[in-house]
Amino acid sequence: MMTVMAEPPLLLALDLAGTVAFALNGAMTGLKAAKLDIVGMLTLGMVTALGGGILRDILIGALPPATFSSWPYLAVAAGGALIAFFLSRQLRPYTLPIELLDAAGLSLFCVTGATKSLAFGLGAVPAVILGAVTAVGGGTIRDVLVRRVPTVLTSGLYAIPALIGAAIAVTTVRTGVYGVAAALGAAAACFLVRLAGLRYNLNAPVAPEARTKE
Amino acid sequence: MMTVMAEPPLLLALDLAGTVAFALNGAMTGLKAAKLDIVGMLTLGMVTALGGGILRDILIGALPPATFSSWPYLAVAAGGALIAFFLSRQLRPYTLPIELLDAAGLSLFCVTGATKSLAFGLGAVPAVILGAVTAVGGGTIRDVLVRRVPTVLTSGLYAIPALIGAAIAVTTVRTGVYGVAAALGAAAACFLVRLAGLRYNLNAPVAPEARTKE
Amino acid sequence: MMTVMAEPPLLLALDLAGTVAFALNGAMTGLKAAKLDIVGMLTLGMVTALGGGILRDILIGALPPATFSSWPYLAVAAGGALIAFFLSRQLRPYTLPIELLDAAGLSLFCVTGATKSLAFGLGAVPAVILGAVTAVGGGTIRDVLVRRVPTVLTSGLYAIPALIGAAIAVTTVRTGVYGVAAALGAAAACFLVRLAGLRYNLNAPVAPEARTKE
Repeated sequence: MMTVMAEPPLLLALDLAGTVAFALNGAMTGLKAAKLDIVGMLTLGMVTALGGGILRDILIGALPPATFSSWPYLAVAAGGALIAFFLSRQLRPYTLPIELLDAAGLSLFCVTGATKSLAFGLGAVPAVILGAVTAVGGGTIRDVLVRRVPTVLTSGLYAIPALIGAAIAVTTVRTGVYGVAAALGAAAACFLVRLAGLRYNLNAPVAPEARTKE
Repeated sequence: MMTVMAEPPLLLALDLAGTVAFALNGAMTGLKAAKLDIVGMLTLGMVTALGGGILRDILIGALPPATFSSWPYLAVAAGGALIAFFLSRQLRPYTLPIELLDAAGLSLFCVTGATKSLAFGLGAVPAVILGAVTAVGGGTIRDVLVRRVPTVLTSGLYAIPALIGAAIAVTTVRTGVYGVAAALGAAAACFLVRLAGLRYNLNAPVAPEARTKE
Repeated sequence: MMTVMAEPPLLLALDLAGTVAFALNGAMTGLKAAKLDIVGMLTLGMVTALGGGILRDILIGALPPATFSSWPYLAVAAGGALIAFFLSRQLRPYTLPIELLDAAGLSLFCVTGATKSLAFGLGAVPAVILGAVTAVGGGTIRDVLVRRVPTVLTSGLYAIPALIGAAIAVTTVRTGVYGVAAALGAAAACFLVRLAGLRYNLNAPVAPEARTKE
């Protein structure tokens, strides 16, 4: 439909890497935030890992979602969640990995979400937005299920890096230079902006009304 | 597919007006309920404004949703949320507008949701229900994201006015008298019933079991 | 598309029975957990009853969902919720029914969800997972709306019985022995495992990290 199509092996590899990252993150969040048992960790890990891609596939009309017609997604998501279960003691001292894994999933999914949306005929702006939706979708469902206000609403630099990564990916596809390097570059840009936000606790501006109250 | 189709310009105009109302409402709710920053306000405003229509389009199989193939929706939703951000201090003394904007969005979306569902071949009863789903969907997602029990469950006169507006719209389409006047009349009926509910704090009956407990 | 198709009348009867069970459960939960009025009980009952099937139909691309093109679903869901409303005082002394109705809905929906997914061409593993999604979907939406951590995450034996029932159903379809007896057997297996979990408060293993904390 579009002139440029992301080469499937690259798209699949990035998508699976993001899936593992989010599955680990979701399962570890389930353990820390709600002391879930193995079934709960597995469920939350898989929902976090697969939710964004499923949401994207519903919105672009690619039904049933790739998750259900291609077994590697399910296997990789379940594997990631089980690793989190069995290594939870070893991972205990570290609080950083949860955030890093979330940032990795965010960065990979914004690129694959945007390029897949383009391949299904959506325009550039919708593709950028759907890239961001793919990236933040799984984590948002995760947060709702464990009753936290979703990160995408409260953290200034969460949606923005996803939009940046998706915009770079869309631009490279439209200018014909998309490939392994461009995809990794777009993901790296998202990742670095997200890390900067975490490291320096950067936040977006708050409305005058809220400021005057403090 | 159906014999009668809502004329597109009217449907679009009403849909965009409802989108602005819900975007303002969602962004202001984000500020008041969770002190969100500009990114959070923008995200919550857009989700509130676009969520109901996206839900309707998924359910009637109109994928990708109109929101993503037609830029005015995205632009108008983002614009409404940004207005709420920049005018938040001026809007501060007023608590009424949030409720009024929500009622306006409810009234416009129940009409457009019902008529679009009819145009996609759904029966009269499903179309009325989907009109109400369109109307309450965005606000329900908004409430879940900021961790409130959704208005549609707790307020007696929220789903009912939406069902009334949708039923009037469906009746006028089926009797061949649908047009600008009928659409505005159906929206006005919903709006007035909703306002009456707010003004007089009307509620639906409570089950005997709950009453005896107090 | 598939060689074996569940005979429609059986699928419909089981689906409607599960719908009534979940509608009663959802409405009673709304009353106990959030003291909802009749509109809230009706809405929560219908969402609990219809949410899982709608989710399944979206994911397999069967749009609009069967719920909207076939009036018995809507009628039966509304009827179940209204029964809960009018009999709430009589049902008051019993806390068991809510759990039993939920288990009944779970058992019936995992079978119908799995067989419908097979009939739409999905593979065996995705069909088992979609059977479980159909079974736990409505209850999960119910829990999110009344702000509880969903049962599927916190109860060790909730997703597992649904997966068992769905797996039995898929196996019998694939081996050509699916019919009334097989469908009821698969549902009964799910129901008994779920009841055993409730009765003996069985739980799945917890990660080492969580155990050492206590």
